[in-house]
Amino acid sequence: MQDLERRIQRLEDIEAIRQLKARYFHACDRKDVETLRQCFAEGEIHIDYGVIGRFNDREAFLSVYKEKACHSHIVDMHHGQNAQIHWLSEQEATAIWDLFFHQIDTETNTITQLAGFYKDRFIKQSGKWVIIDTCFTITSTYITTLSDGIPKALHAGLAPMA
Amino acid sequence: MQDLERRIQRLEDIEAIRQLKARYFHACDRKDVETLRQCFAEGEIHIDYGVIGRFNDREAFLSVYKEKACHSHIVDMHHGQNAQIHWLSEQEATAIWDLFFHQIDTETNTITQLAGFYKDRFIKQSGKWVIIDTCFTITSTYITTLSDGIPKALHAGLAPMA
Amino acid sequence: MQDLERRIQRLEDIEAIRQLKARYFHACDRKDVETLRQCFAEGEIHIDYGVIGRFNDREAFLSVYKEKACHSHIVDMHHGQNAQIHWLSEQEATAIWDLFFHQIDTETNTITQLAGFYKDRFIKQSGKWVIIDTCFTITSTYITTLSDGIPKALHAGLAPMA
Repeated sequence: MQDLERRIQRLEDIEAIRQLKARYFHACDRKDVETLRQCFAEGEIHIDYGVIGRFNDREAFLSVYKEKACHSHIVDMHHGQNAQIHWLSEQEATAIWDLFFHQIDTETNTITQLAGFYKDRFIKQSGKWVIIDTCFTITSTYITTLSDGIPKALHAGLAPMA
Repeated sequence: MQDLERRIQRLEDIEAIRQLKARYFHACDRKDVETLRQCFAEGEIHIDYGVIGRFNDREAFLSVYKEKACHSHIVDMHHGQNAQIHWLSEQEATAIWDLFFHQIDTETNTITQLAGFYKDRFIKQSGKWVIIDTCFTITSTYITTLSDGIPKALHAGLAPMA
Repeated sequence: MQDLERRIQRLEDIEAIRQLKARYFHACDRKDVETLRQCFAEGEIHIDYGVIGRFNDREAFLSVYKEKACHSHIVDMHHGQNAQIHWLSEQEATAIWDLFFHQIDTETNTITQLAGFYKDRFIKQSGKWVIIDTCFTITSTYITTLSDGIPKALHAGLAPMA
């Protein structure tokens, strides 16, 4: 009985973590800063987003996020892919997530398509799952500018080293 | 024991709803009208697909779907993303789903990439989950025409207001 | 009680299969041949990847995979979509998966976007789920070459018949 309950708990936790990351990606695109805040643990965390920056608490990240993303000319799409969620206990899990990212910058007329993957660690804090550790690695970029609607590729290939 | 069973039921329902929406998207691309029909509730429903139309029963929607999509020159791709499924009871759930859509129209040589999100409500009818309420909001469009293979962007950015 | 356990088992198996396919796609992109090997059953299997080939054991497939994909100029993205997983028993399941595929070939400056779907059968072998039967059907391709950054579409539409 305890065993069955633990197995149910594991499945519930995996579902909760999948939805946490879904909520995070959706909030990134909707520029919903308060929802993003709630996706991360309070206190010390580790965010390594490469060229975007490295952050040790959520407010430091949100400040850069607001500066870079929260403009009407930045039209973003973050779609999480291929979730591999490893449940370690009722308090801790890790995951690998692939990302498909697309951005239209209507000011510079630049289209960026990007792929990569996250390595994440999650903990349960005050009864809900949150991100405590996340590292994103870019695996490909394809960047195009439009001039009078005519596209020109600036870069297509592996990510340039940061 | 009843509590454990309810927790299992919740997880089964979330999985059933996730697969219902997957079946819906796959059927959209395969032009499988009968499977689409089975994804929606019988009787009065609410479908708000913006520029595509608003419908109060599934036959009204399917009629427009057949007119717009069921042609060999329309090559569609509907991929559901970032599922956030909220189980309310054994009879009702809501969800937010992001969409990545891509269309090749081989008659007009137009390529449309589109992102957006659904707000859905599901009920259990005759023992199976179906869509009773769905509203889709476009968040970005990127439309290109090809002339002798040379692309020209017609629109890249936020969706034009409908 | 036995019934509850069987229902939990079913949910655990569906999650395990979802993560198996996620692991497979992620390994395809990371060129992680050993992880790919572990995704397939030992012994006789059926892989029908259309123009890529048909294979009756995993080594035959991996050999072609290594030849085609394991080069630094091949930058791949395999994202699984719209999973429909049908659990038949604790030993067998089938599934339909849509795919969004993107490839940058930095040697030929060719960009390939491709959509399609898998029909898969899975079994449990030595206690873990593996792929025993998989058939992939292409539903659209969009192929572009870049010359000094200027794109030209070679093909956009339904997949050419193999």
